[in-house]
Amino acid sequence: MTAYTIEFEPLGRRGQCQTNESLLNCARECSAGISSVCGGRGTCGACRVRVLSGTVSEPTSRERETFSSQEIEEGWRLACQTYPYSDCQVSVPAGSMTASQRTQVEGLQTKVTIEPPVQVFRLQLAPPSLSDLQADADRLLEALSQQHQQHHYQVDIHVLRTLPLQLRAWNWKCQAAVQHNEVIAVEPLSSRQLGLAVDLGTTKIAGYLVDLSNGRTLAAQGMTNPQISHGDDIISRIHSINSTGSGAKLQKLVIDAINRLASELCDEAAANTGEILEAVVVGNTAMHHLLLGLPVGHLARAPYVPAACGTLDIKARQLGLHIAGGAFIHLLPNIAGFVGADHVAMLLATREIWQAGGLTLALDIGTNTEVSLISEGRITSASCASGPAFEGGHIKNGMRAASGAIERLQIVDNHIHYQTIAEAPPAGICGSGIIDTIAQLYRAGIIDQSGRMEKNHPRVHSRQKQPEFWLVNREERDGLPPITITQRDIRELQLAKAAIRTGIELLLKANGHSEDQLRQVIIAGAFGSYIDISSAITIGMLPSLPPDRFQQVGNAAGSGARLALLSARLRTEAQQIASRVRYLELAGASDFTPIFLQAGYLGRYRLKQGIREEID
Amino acid sequence: MTAYTIEFEPLGRRGQCQTNESLLNCARECSAGISSVCGGRGTCGACRVRVLSGTVSEPTSRERETFSSQEIEEGWRLACQTYPYSDCQVSVPAGSMTASQRTQVEGLQTKVTIEPPVQVFRLQLAPPSLSDLQADADRLLEALSQQHQQHHYQVDIHVLRTLPLQLRAWNWKCQAAVQHNEVIAVEPLSSRQLGLAVDLGTTKIAGYLVDLSNGRTLAAQGMTNPQISHGDDIISRIHSINSTGSGAKLQKLVIDAINRLASELCDEAAANTGEILEAVVVGNTAMHHLLLGLPVGHLARAPYVPAACGTLDIKARQLGLHIAGGAFIHLLPNIAGFVGADHVAMLLATREIWQAGGLTLALDIGTNTEVSLISEGRITSASCASGPAFEGGHIKNGMRAASGAIERLQIVDNHIHYQTIAEAPPAGICGSGIIDTIAQLYRAGIIDQSGRMEKNHPRVHSRQKQPEFWLVNREERDGLPPITITQRDIRELQLAKAAIRTGIELLLKANGHSEDQLRQVIIAGAFGSYIDISSAITIGMLPSLPPDRFQQVGNAAGSGARLALLSARLRTEAQQIASRVRYLELAGASDFTPIFLQAGYLGRYRLKQGIREEID
Repeated sequence: MTAYTIEFEPLGRRGQCQTNESLLNCARECSAGISSVCGGRGTCGACRVRVLSGTVSEPTSRERETFSSQEIEEGWRLACQTYPYSDCQVSVPAGSMTASQRTQVEGLQTKVTIEPPVQVFRLQLAPPSLSDLQADADRLLEALSQQHQQHHYQVDIHVLRTLPLQLRAWNWKCQAAVQHNEVIAVEPLSSRQLGLAVDLGTTKIAGYLVDLSNGRTLAAQGMTNPQISHGDDIISRIHSINSTGSGAKLQKLVIDAINRLASELCDEAAANTGEILEAVVVGNTAMHHLLLGLPVGHLARAPYVPAACGTLDIKARQLGLHIAGGAFIHLLPNIAGFVGADHVAMLLATREIWQAGGLTLALDIGTNTEVSLISEGRITSASCASGPAFEGGHIKNGMRAASGAIERLQIVDNHIHYQTIAEAPPAGICGSGIIDTIAQLYRAGIIDQSGRMEKNHPRVHSRQKQPEFWLVNREERDGLPPITITQRDIRELQLAKAAIRTGIELLLKANGHSEDQLRQVIIAGAFGSYIDISSAITIGMLPSLPPDRFQQVGNAAGSGARLALLSARLRTEAQQIASRVRYLELAGASDFTPIFLQAGYLGRYRLKQGIREEID
Repeated sequence: MTAYTIEFEPLGRRGQCQTNESLLNCARECSAGISSVCGGRGTCGACRVRVLSGTVSEPTSRERETFSSQEIEEGWRLACQTYPYSDCQVSVPAGSMTASQRTQVEGLQTKVTIEPPVQVFRLQLAPPSLSDLQADADRLLEALSQQHQQHHYQVDIHVLRTLPLQLRAWNWKCQAAVQHNEVIAVEPLSSRQLGLAVDLGTTKIAGYLVDLSNGRTLAAQGMTNPQISHGDDIISRIHSINSTGSGAKLQKLVIDAINRLASELCDEAAANTGEILEAVVVGNTAMHHLLLGLPVGHLARAPYVPAACGTLDIKARQLGLHIAGGAFIHLLPNIAGFVGADHVAMLLATREIWQAGGLTLALDIGTNTEVSLISEGRITSASCASGPAFEGGHIKNGMRAASGAIERLQIVDNHIHYQTIAEAPPAGICGSGIIDTIAQLYRAGIIDQSGRMEKNHPRVHSRQKQPEFWLVNREERDGLPPITITQRDIRELQLAKAAIRTGIELLLKANGHSEDQLRQVIIAGAFGSYIDISSAITIGMLPSLPPDRFQQVGNAAGSGARLALLSARLRTEAQQIASRVRYLELAGASDFTPIFLQAGYLGRYRLKQGIREEID
């Protein structure tokens, strides 16, 4: 029986699909999170997907009832009715995602007064004649001035090139989009006014198509950042560029991906990319630099100074981004080499939370973890090199959050209970599972505060002079090697969680606060939205606070990018946030080492005047 | 004996050179206008030229004394010492040109307060450290703000890409060029601050390299507009594009030419094109549109509306112009479809003349003639379709101003005296020669006021039922056909001069003035600077005014472009001039036809209440 590889966009999940298996089953197995209410009988229509490439079974009568013939031509199908005949690429629209999946692309929605920096004006021009010889562009600018009191000084050169034919074709009626004292697009009156928000992550790119006239998100998608083939994390990508000079190649990869994303989002919303009047992109500082083709070498060398941090407005076409002719791409400001515009966007999106709620900690946990402490409007940010352990990296049986990954784990009476993604047979352990595991081993007394493993426990085996705890035995895996947590894995996670906790402690200390003064902790990002907070507290990664002080907010960076599209005022606010941030370089703090060493221990604790104090 | 073709840049003159003939002799024969004081003995050094391509004789000892070995390697030679061994391309620097040639590239020099729109600031930055982590770009912007009170909001993306390496290589000392609220170049402290002014003519492109710090013109060169292969005049180029869609090709031709020009100018001034911080380009409206890739179709169809007239600032790299990374190209405003930015530049360059001197007429005579009437600061401009007769087009023995062209002619006692360009044997007759010829034939009574030729004159022959006057007989040309002026040639010139005179009359009439109120007549452009004013008055092309009211000012458009490089204030003034101009569409004037018919007659005249009144 042949197995095909199915790739589910936007989350980038991959699954193996047997010939007699539906797309829905396959999606379940690889945790692609497609909704289904009717149980796969083709009646509820909840599992709509779009087949982007590959061969699949003919549409069933159920599907012909559900979709128009044009939709079927465009690849729309019900996942439960569709059987792959080859490797396929399948797009899952937000509406067909399970809630947890949707969080990753949708993120926080906050209220905003719609006042986008791109403004659009409807115009009716007088046609030229022998007694009225004004040039087309001047006619347009004068109409803007007279009909809308908009005094702009020039028309973008790309717009100029098509203006004469278009104005005549549209019978001198049009709408003009203006920004930065320039007419950046001229379109027929029927055109929509769209914006593109992009959260450019190291691993994943999330895109949102926004209607600038009403603020609605018309479509949302994510895709894997194709730069991943040049290194899983920022540092390895920078090293790859330093050694091969492939900066331009990495830039092209990501621009092509954003173009593809824009095009797919527009397809989904029955729009065209020429209606996108502005793009806002946020990402960490390295992604920002790679997108712009800026040198990244200094980001990886002390003192880790970026080429540019400030707000930038660049013609989208200059980067090869195909949206409206004269449209700009706006880059929110970065804060420092390892605290980027994505963190600014996150702070922007969560501003109502932290502005209202007293002393606040805001974290974006990942390979690199950005942390901000907000105290009466004062923001101090730091970057913690938490490393790849949370993504399953440097962990013996670690893996990304994909099918078969153990994502939750409990030890009850020496029995191991676990849950895998997509309920697939256990294949390894992902970040949230590792945090649970360590917390449970610590609670069960199998590892002590220092992380040392109890060698006499029946599930602890020694291998190559190193103790390891068997989570899943050989027998439970049909003879495959056991899934284990090794002593070294524990050390790795201790380093990772110590890095985050040290960042928190040093930020608090630098601002004269203690942990128990924290009113709220905001945790953003896909990984952060999945972890079990109590496990994270148990291992001493997060401070021990009541559960209601924690908020997991999904992709807040993407939400911030959308807000910046919709509001010039919020864009200014983002700049003010970034300029107000005091960046704390942790490596430069004199007490980094003692705090880091204490933070490495497991167990709930608080620091009292620099001394670790256990909490039961 | 083999003859080689030698092309002399920047005037685009071509000559045939025998193997035993020096470049100097060849230049003389084709009117390339190379200076020589010592008579070709290699001692005065006045005839320095640069051989761009082709094989020539080895440098003589005289030349080795005159030039450094590097200069010789770059092709620098004395024209009198150099003998071609193949077809060659030779560049004649302004300093080696005869006065009349130089006029074409140098034009009017006027005084100006140096306050260029591109400003350059010297900066000393503090290097970053672990306690000072500011991004390179922000560091630069802050230094501009603190050290020079210059508050700019971003650094151009191209500049950003090299900034980190450069700042470190230059030990954190640099100079920053700023324009339009942006840092457009960052250079080492030793860099020069250059500007490029370009007069983009239909036939010729003149370029000037200007030192923005002191206003000096460091180098000037001209070259043939390579678009000429797609049509001699604007209309034929527009038709060529309409039928073949070759707009992008014509654009590329002219951009490549300007790049070549910039590079040669920089070579001449020992500079590099990266030191050019801004370019100002002026041209007629069609050249302006072709340069920018704007559609030109509507320029050739009533009501002849341009795509754009206003001032434009575009990133030079966006057009493919290779100057400083973030540099802009500034386009002065056009006035109408057939009155372009070159005319605005001409008005700018001559403003001190017309502002001081009462009622003024300013003309740029060519295939298309632009005329402005300036009355107490009010400017009315018109375009006259004078046609190609002044360039020798549509004239039986007409030719461009090249070797052998009759450029001056007198009839004394039935004897024809003439002067040819480069004193070469007569080959044809160019514009200034045609004007002289008609004036002399009219004065001698060989043609009457209506232009009709006296058929009984001994030099008047009839050919194909058409009378023609033999200027140069068959015998004087060693059996070659005679050089003649035909009845049809005279009609052609009558149309051409009537077009100009009608423009003048209608402008005066529209402003309630008469010719004798004109205090001064400014004539610009290469052709206009060569014509004999009294001949032009005799045939009724120019109004009959005392000689001291005429000023021939050379390439004033090029001078205007240079002024715009040097002064933001003058750039504003150019905009004010353009916006102040009332454009008069001659075809729309109700009395165009009667005035045009009267203007067709030869002889000095003035209009009194619309009636032609002869002047003896």
